[in-house]
Amino acid sequence: MPAGVVAICGGIGGAKLALGLYRVLAPRALSVIVNCGDDFEHLGLRICPDLDTTLYTLAGLANTERGWGRRDETWAFMDALGSLGGPTWFRLGDKDVALHVERTRRLATGEPLSAIIAEFAARLGVNAAIAPMSDDPIRTRVGTPEGELDFQDYFVRLRCAPRITAVTFDGAAAAQPSPGAIAALGGARAIVICPSNPYLSIDPILAVPGMRALLRARGAPVIAVSPIVGGDAVKGPTAKIMRELGVPSTPAAIARHYAGLLDGFVLDARDQASARDFDCPVHVTDTLMKRLGDRERLAREVLTFASSLAQARY
Amino acid sequence: MPAGVVAICGGIGGAKLALGLYRVLAPRALSVIVNCGDDFEHLGLRICPDLDTTLYTLAGLANTERGWGRRDETWAFMDALGSLGGPTWFRLGDKDVALHVERTRRLATGEPLSAIIAEFAARLGVNAAIAPMSDDPIRTRVGTPEGELDFQDYFVRLRCAPRITAVTFDGAAAAQPSPGAIAALGGARAIVICPSNPYLSIDPILAVPGMRALLRARGAPVIAVSPIVGGDAVKGPTAKIMRELGVPSTPAAIARHYAGLLDGFVLDARDQASARDFDCPVHVTDTLMKRLGDRERLAREVLTFASSLAQARY
Repeated sequence: MPAGVVAICGGIGGAKLALGLYRVLAPRALSVIVNCGDDFEHLGLRICPDLDTTLYTLAGLANTERGWGRRDETWAFMDALGSLGGPTWFRLGDKDVALHVERTRRLATGEPLSAIIAEFAARLGVNAAIAPMSDDPIRTRVGTPEGELDFQDYFVRLRCAPRITAVTFDGAAAAQPSPGAIAALGGARAIVICPSNPYLSIDPILAVPGMRALLRARGAPVIAVSPIVGGDAVKGPTAKIMRELGVPSTPAAIARHYAGLLDGFVLDARDQASARDFDCPVHVTDTLMKRLGDRERLAREVLTFASSLAQARY
Repeated sequence: MPAGVVAICGGIGGAKLALGLYRVLAPRALSVIVNCGDDFEHLGLRICPDLDTTLYTLAGLANTERGWGRRDETWAFMDALGSLGGPTWFRLGDKDVALHVERTRRLATGEPLSAIIAEFAARLGVNAAIAPMSDDPIRTRVGTPEGELDFQDYFVRLRCAPRITAVTFDGAAAAQPSPGAIAALGGARAIVICPSNPYLSIDPILAVPGMRALLRARGAPVIAVSPIVGGDAVKGPTAKIMRELGVPSTPAAIARHYAGLLDGFVLDARDQASARDFDCPVHVTDTLMKRLGDRERLAREVLTFASSLAQARY
């Protein structure tokens, strides 16, 4: 699989597989289209959690223990902010805040988010294309019995505690895919939907008008890697949200969620018994990515699976 | 002099005397009205160099060796900003940037600058009132033979090299004194014009309509401390600017610059010979403030001088 692999990706779980793909592919062969429905304004700065997680992960700068932000981070900014009475519930390290300040400065000059992220990636030495799903503002909002919440309110402040009744993507109807997303999908030979939260991380990407058509346009095989293992999410609220929405928290339900898009599904060996519940080809393997080697192995298997699906067509 | 001392102050030199006054006066007895004509937008943040120098100095947080910013500062933000291709010509430490971010955030909510600075001062344990001259935007601009320059362009980027032909204060005509300035001057029993640059630091304050009248309103003695010692400025471009504007770089010329405002002038002993050139009473002393003790001694002398002038009226 020499070039044209596109990863569709949210935050931590998705970025793990994106890193595996990045490491096993040739330089510039990988493009990552990243959710930016979680983006928000904080302290007057534009924060893009999923884009930054992807950027830091591929640049080798991510704090993998904490799961967010940069490694070797310092906290003088946050301490000083607290001493001035500023809001400290969303933690920003000294290096991380520089990225938010510089992004916000450039956005204010009218530059599109995708151009800024592309330059950041190049400057941080990332040999892959990283693109937001759109340069237009899209904001994920979570419906709960008590009313609608901004995503970060739900995710960080309330730690996903409220019961979800609906998920909406404000601004999506008027948005366009970013130039980077269009270019990546235009050259796609395989498309991997990473094991990110389908409702909160992948759906906002698919909600951009034209994105589903772009995913199918080239006929490249589209493969989803299960974010559900043994009936639960590896990390995060995926299984909880599925239950709240009345959907069984199973890999097959994830595949049904992506109905009309998938050519193949990568299932964890712990869920092997459910392999017969799928309408598409299934590859069964260990999908847990604890170590870097796990990510590379899973990436190789996903790419081999994609090759086999592509060959089977001809 | 128990209460109601008002210092009119620019950056470093002014803040030194303000610190002396702060240390010898009773808590809450000092108010400092600070130049904000140097304020500018950088990285999308509102930077207020003179206000912050005053705040950090009175809070005991200033870096006195470097002359700007905070002591015990770290530079992770600046390093990360540089690695992303951001502008690094104006240095901002990790703690310092928190103040700019939080100020910018609060200004964006519509809060006036003076209220924000008052809360910052209280949170940093400053027992003095620190007020910008105005809550309205005023921007000092420097005329040169090659055209007009923004203040920071002139002061930081070009290191005061261009010849000054004029100094203007954009927005001053429409500005009002800040509530803090009005309150301070309404309770003034002595007013000290600190040894700041008259053209770049004090004139913007005096350019706010109503400010001169407020200085004279209570009949409190107004005393200027000479920023010129032995024919030159202790620090900064004051003498250079006076020469460029065709004014002799002498203490008496400073006093004439403040014509109509002054009740007394504090002259450095090195300039004692010029004492007869003044129309107002003169106090001669060592005005150099190398050590903390110098600042306190000069502050005490200024306050005693002010008392003597006040008593002489009755």
